[in-house]
Amino acid sequence: MLIHRLRRLLYKHLEPAGWSRPGLSPANLFISALIVISVVAAILETEPVLRDNYLGLFLWIENSFFIVFLIEYALRVYAVGEDPKYRGVFGRIRYIFTFVALVDLLVLASFVVTLGSFSTYWMRFVKVLRLLRIARLGRFSKAMTAFGQALKERSYELVFSCVIALTLLLGSSAVLYFVEGDNQEAFASVPRALWWSVATLTTVGYGDVTPITSAGKIFAGITALAGVGLIAMPTGILAAAFSDAFQQQRKLEEEKKQQG
Amino acid sequence: MLIHRLRRLLYKHLEPAGWSRPGLSPANLFISALIVISVVAAILETEPVLRDNYLGLFLWIENSFFIVFLIEYALRVYAVGEDPKYRGVFGRIRYIFTFVALVDLLVLASFVVTLGSFSTYWMRFVKVLRLLRIARLGRFSKAMTAFGQALKERSYELVFSCVIALTLLLGSSAVLYFVEGDNQEAFASVPRALWWSVATLTTVGYGDVTPITSAGKIFAGITALAGVGLIAMPTGILAAAFSDAFQQQRKLEEEKKQQG
Amino acid sequence: MLIHRLRRLLYKHLEPAGWSRPGLSPANLFISALIVISVVAAILETEPVLRDNYLGLFLWIENSFFIVFLIEYALRVYAVGEDPKYRGVFGRIRYIFTFVALVDLLVLASFVVTLGSFSTYWMRFVKVLRLLRIARLGRFSKAMTAFGQALKERSYELVFSCVIALTLLLGSSAVLYFVEGDNQEAFASVPRALWWSVATLTTVGYGDVTPITSAGKIFAGITALAGVGLIAMPTGILAAAFSDAFQQQRKLEEEKKQQG
Amino acid sequence: MLIHRLRRLLYKHLEPAGWSRPGLSPANLFISALIVISVVAAILETEPVLRDNYLGLFLWIENSFFIVFLIEYALRVYAVGEDPKYRGVFGRIRYIFTFVALVDLLVLASFVVTLGSFSTYWMRFVKVLRLLRIARLGRFSKAMTAFGQALKERSYELVFSCVIALTLLLGSSAVLYFVEGDNQEAFASVPRALWWSVATLTTVGYGDVTPITSAGKIFAGITALAGVGLIAMPTGILAAAFSDAFQQQRKLEEEKKQQG
Repeated sequence: MLIHRLRRLLYKHLEPAGWSRPGLSPANLFISALIVISVVAAILETEPVLRDNYLGLFLWIENSFFIVFLIEYALRVYAVGEDPKYRGVFGRIRYIFTFVALVDLLVLASFVVTLGSFSTYWMRFVKVLRLLRIARLGRFSKAMTAFGQALKERSYELVFSCVIALTLLLGSSAVLYFVEGDNQEAFASVPRALWWSVATLTTVGYGDVTPITSAGKIFAGITALAGVGLIAMPTGILAAAFSDAFQQQRKLEEEKKQQG
Repeated sequence: MLIHRLRRLLYKHLEPAGWSRPGLSPANLFISALIVISVVAAILETEPVLRDNYLGLFLWIENSFFIVFLIEYALRVYAVGEDPKYRGVFGRIRYIFTFVALVDLLVLASFVVTLGSFSTYWMRFVKVLRLLRIARLGRFSKAMTAFGQALKERSYELVFSCVIALTLLLGSSAVLYFVEGDNQEAFASVPRALWWSVATLTTVGYGDVTPITSAGKIFAGITALAGVGLIAMPTGILAAAFSDAFQQQRKLEEEKKQQG
Repeated sequence: MLIHRLRRLLYKHLEPAGWSRPGLSPANLFISALIVISVVAAILETEPVLRDNYLGLFLWIENSFFIVFLIEYALRVYAVGEDPKYRGVFGRIRYIFTFVALVDLLVLASFVVTLGSFSTYWMRFVKVLRLLRIARLGRFSKAMTAFGQALKERSYELVFSCVIALTLLLGSSAVLYFVEGDNQEAFASVPRALWWSVATLTTVGYGDVTPITSAGKIFAGITALAGVGLIAMPTGILAAAFSDAFQQQRKLEEEKKQQG
Repeated sequence: MLIHRLRRLLYKHLEPAGWSRPGLSPANLFISALIVISVVAAILETEPVLRDNYLGLFLWIENSFFIVFLIEYALRVYAVGEDPKYRGVFGRIRYIFTFVALVDLLVLASFVVTLGSFSTYWMRFVKVLRLLRIARLGRFSKAMTAFGQALKERSYELVFSCVIALTLLLGSSAVLYFVEGDNQEAFASVPRALWWSVATLTTVGYGDVTPITSAGKIFAGITALAGVGLIAMPTGILAAAFSDAFQQQRKLEEEKKQQG
């Protein structure tokens, strides 16, 4: 029947798993582009200068995207019935409670919630929430899975690096709290000294807080040199992990190309 | 005939492809040196102190180089007729519209355009344009090609790194916009917070914008630590890509030496 | 007898060497958690705002942990008699003077010493000393040993890197002392210029001290570029050392799993 | 004869090439330690606070070291006659003009020159010159040779990295000169903008100069992100070069041990 062929067509073009060729279907590429545009719009809207001058444009974008994403959501729920796992009405309800479908629903909710915003604090929270629309892109990315797997395999090394990093952070904070604590408010406790410590060991070095005594400068110099080692550790581990993940991903792509 | 032998000689010494030995011909080495000198002169001319004191010298350099490059350009157009692809008058016109020849023409134009400069804005634009003379060196570099190829082969990894970098930049900006937006102008919108975010995640850390609340400092610290990972990713990928490119380049050079 | 079976049980659960399965025994996991909590409490206590508001809570935590760690210490000394090396009263005394047992004793002392603190300087010293409780975690970590071994094997490279780093630090300090010494207090001697030098070569770049003369900026720029090389050296060495250490550690874990 | 055996003994203990066992002879270890101490003294002497308080001590150290190094120099010149290349009076004169012997002579001169120093500028120059004493250590280091060799083998890659780095530095300076030149003195010419460019691309980020316009911040952000790539390049190249150099050095040491 026509209705069945339409559902199959929708499933093929909307579900990444239903698309047999490598890459994304044209429909999903279009949706991805819309997601990127809606995120960019949500970012620009936080800027008061732009918001005040183009309020109408932003409202029009929000409304249009809400309608498009609503239709897309409805079609997705309808089309997923093609998959034996989500057949029938109860199957559709099960699908609505899967992780990716809940993300889609949350994004739809982020469009509606704008209307009832009152305090500036709550306003900002809603605006930041809207940036989570970018999470919808995750559904289309298989690289993410391979990448997460590679990190998992090296979790032991990463935990060990974190423990060493924490010990260095703690140690340097404690020493600078000891030698500079009397002179500066910013070193008056270990948690406060941690702010300086993070900025130094990651080699960010804002310079808003720096030691002023000779002893403080000597220990800060040692900390800065230790920071070079701190960066060397995860660099080596992550570089190897990423290299592994990408090689694996490439193999999978090639296998798919040979099959498809 | 003498004219044919002269054209062949010019082609051999001016066209990198016409030179059979490894490296550059003496004529092209000389031209490369002139390009470097003209770029250095263009850089130094932007400095008001130097420009006001040595105006005559700069004008003399500009004029001399214009004449030399004009002659070189004419000789190149004449000599390229040696190549079967660009034979005859129409061949020469085809050559003039190739990418490298257009770059040469643009550089020649950058000498002439100086005369008709009026507003300071336009003046600065012309001066910056002149620095593009360095692009002429690209014609002599075969390493560039091998290097571009190596980057292309790893484009998948690089795009993935960029996506993760953008997500980190966006996420940290959004969080700091949320917690610091009320306190500081520099965090009053996500685009404004991005400036802080880029400086922190790349570990540049100018320090012109830093969080002042405790919550802001905690999230900024996490961002700084994430920046270490952000740097580790492209370091691994690019280091491997460069290593591949240089090995390939070395092989090509050795093969050429054995042949030449 | 019951007393012997109890001692054997205590030994098995308290001594990491006595535990036959991979990982830590539940008792030691609990003790590790307590150590982490006591360190976090000691960190937070240095913050005047928290200390003044939750003085009672901090005192209660200190006292409770002292009692728990005291009991744990007594049980450890008792249980260690199971090991033939530390049998009998004299064996126990020998055990008390081993490195790990002395660390435990020092941590116990850090609880008691709080009571008799007078000057603010001495107070801060005691508070920093308490953070050394984290050293107790070292007893449970076999990764630390493998890691130390890997660093030892590359000590030659690391010493060489340190010598080059010191030469760069010294050289850039001397040059900036020479060109900027008259203009700024921060460059008025080589040791003072070292503060700037460390911040620049490690790419921390606080910005509290920067050259102001042209000559100073030129040499500072060269120093900053040299800093990229300075970071590249230990990154390569340490990344390789860490990679070796973790691979060795993984092998040991797998061998233990096959045996256990 | 006694005099010949003494000369042979001196040669064996003073000339690194004459020492058959691995490492340095006790005499040379002692000299190395003296060199390090004399450099440390020269560094500390530049600090006015220390110099004014311990003037007598510094003078005593300078005088003592001068005498010791003078005797050592005389003994070296005498002992080198053992080497067939430098036999006789003319051989000794030839030796005095070798690079290592000239360095020794220069260091001796740096002790004497102190006496006749007048202007503060000249004073500082003499003090910085004294730090060159550290160059004397070079004579004892075989690692330096292997290291230099490894860098030489990768000179092609390093030159290529430098060219890319220079292009990035130049390009970002030119762009920021164009967009920020009207607003800030620090961007009023390309050479001035280079100071900001170096600080940003090396991720040092002093923060004494930062763009203030939106366009400037956007291009500065792109520059900062490009800086990550700039650092990745030499990191990969140098890490590989150092790894090669150290492996080669280790092999040589092992071979010497098996022979010695």
